Amino acid sequence: MVKAAVLLYQRRMAVYTEVSDDALRAFLAEYGLGELQAFRGIAEGVENSNYALKTSAGDYILTLYERRVDPAELPYFLGLMEHLAAQGLACPTPVQGGDGEALRMLAGRPAAICTFLPGVWPRRIRPEHAAPLGAALAGLHVAGAGFAGRRPNALGPAGWAPLLERCRADGDAVQPGLMAELDATLAGILRDWPQALPEGQIHADLFPDNVFFLDEPPRVSGIIDFYFACTDLLAYDVAVCLNAWCFDADYAFNVTRAAGLLRAYHAVRPLSAAERAALPVLARGAALRFLLTRLFDWVNTPPGAMVTRKDPLEYLRKLRFFLRADSAEAIGG
Amino acid sequence: MVKAAVLLYQRRMAVYTEVSDDALRAFLAEYGLGELQAFRGIAEGVENSNYALKTSAGDYILTLYERRVDPAELPYFLGLMEHLAAQGLACPTPVQGGDGEALRMLAGRPAAICTFLPGVWPRRIRPEHAAPLGAALAGLHVAGAGFAGRRPNALGPAGWAPLLERCRADGDAVQPGLMAELDATLAGILRDWPQALPEGQIHADLFPDNVFFLDEPPRVSGIIDFYFACTDLLAYDVAVCLNAWCFDADYAFNVTRAAGLLRAYHAVRPLSAAERAALPVLARGAALRFLLTRLFDWVNTPPGAMVTRKDPLEYLRKLRFFLRADSAEAIGG
Repeated sequence: MVKAAVLLYQRRMAVYTEVSDDALRAFLAEYGLGELQAFRGIAEGVENSNYALKTSAGDYILTLYERRVDPAELPYFLGLMEHLAAQGLACPTPVQGGDGEALRMLAGRPAAICTFLPGVWPRRIRPEHAAPLGAALAGLHVAGAGFAGRRPNALGPAGWAPLLERCRADGDAVQPGLMAELDATLAGILRDWPQALPEGQIHADLFPDNVFFLDEPPRVSGIIDFYFACTDLLAYDVAVCLNAWCFDADYAFNVTRAAGLLRAYHAVRPLSAAERAALPVLARGAALRFLLTRLFDWVNTPPGAMVTRKDPLEYLRKLRFFLRADSAEAIGG
Repeated sequence: MVKAAVLLYQRRMAVYTEVSDDALRAFLAEYGLGELQAFRGIAEGVENSNYALKTSAGDYILTLYERRVDPAELPYFLGLMEHLAAQGLACPTPVQGGDGEALRMLAGRPAAICTFLPGVWPRRIRPEHAAPLGAALAGLHVAGAGFAGRRPNALGPAGWAPLLERCRADGDAVQPGLMAELDATLAGILRDWPQALPEGQIHADLFPDNVFFLDEPPRVSGIIDFYFACTDLLAYDVAVCLNAWCFDADYAFNVTRAAGLLRAYHAVRPLSAAERAALPVLARGAALRFLLTRLFDWVNTPPGAMVTRKDPLEYLRKLRFFLRADSAEAIGG
């Protein structure tokens, strides 16, 4: 009985949507991309189903949007990518079909084809990555300035208390005392959260696997996965990068790397004194945001599910570090 | 405690080996493939880690051989692919490094780069696939004739009784009475197994996801995944295809498709009267082989493991069908 239940669960829970030949052929007929030459599922990314698509016109990525993405928000994401690419940012560009539409349905899901970007995301972050990353992030913020779309950050400060509530029943089982610690921390972060910093279009999830590099010394050849992008404080995006890029494997904060990132960012888009002063609390907030979503996934993912759960406690360590950092200087600013 | 145990298990159990930038760079330096342009994990296949590799020289597949593959057998597999490709078969060709070697170590595992093959494997099998599949399988058998390597079939008749023993403790929990049914069936298959049929190099796992097609009407553009290849009865490979390609979604045997496959095979490599007469027992054996390996995986895969387990009972239905088929005619021959 247990085994039968597991079987049924796994059948429902496929990480990738399988696309039939007939559906793919009909879908591609909407585009002027020539003959299909290859079609392979990509193992990276857990939110959506991604396929590497090769046609006689070149290489593309086909994405099927899974249940975590609200279809109503796809026009914002695709519009933002189109805008950024038109401004010269190296990001996937949605390909329009003959009807002018980039978004259509495939295998029962919203789907889009985007251009392929060359490059490799860094499995090991080296000192040489910091400056090109900082410059690319600032370039993204500058390029986004003219985009009229607006999407509130569902995983911003207003979302953290409800998310914490949804983890409460099981959270202390992950680590004893965790809920009380997060309650106190969240209150402090919300109290100190800055109100009047510059806003714009932010990526909000600029982890190493979303940034492609090429050449030596490395240059950014592409920024991908805009499906957490939103309209929020620009400096919060910097704080996400301090979390995602500036800790060594032993969880020690790498202040040299952070300083290199911030200096390169500042050279393209100068940070105001207020933005700089807010970096510690913004970094605490970003650490809490990733801690909470990982914790939520952790306590809500059945052990038999075929998805990779990320360790929430990694972000508890980062959060505690940023709570001790009482100035921008302490974190490379 | 339960959660911590699951975490540790998942960390050990990564389906894909992650390759560091430095290791990849050093590895590629052994080849004359130009500049690295892209590197992405492929979601298909569970036995090994596969990466789509793009360099200025073209598209390639990098495979890291995981624990199911015995490193001592890799020279047979790579040598066979090299031989078949030299005979004109569309299969991955191992790329040799500057030292003349196709096999080296990467991230602690044996690894090889092979040429990329265009094409798409059929998610839905259509009548038009049967003839090109049959002709391609016969072409593989003919092309393999001159290859001197020899690898016994570890999953052939001699391997079935030991495999059944390793499933015995848990097998009846999957379906009551299953072990007794398989004991009786195995005895019958071994009693009837043919002794003097032509042998050669067989693929032994020619499922739809290992055959790429292009164009309309479809033609075979590539045969991949030779890591079950071995030296065994050629007609057994045909029997594997009868199992893997000739049942409809409702598990009804599609005798038209089987006849088309056999006719096209026969036109390239004529089946002897003895081979044809043996098809029913060979098909029973092939069904039992896939039933047993799936059953073994089923009862030995912890529910939390991040691998897709395939339903063993699909092959019980196929096995029962072939047990009722008492002549080659009944299965399209």
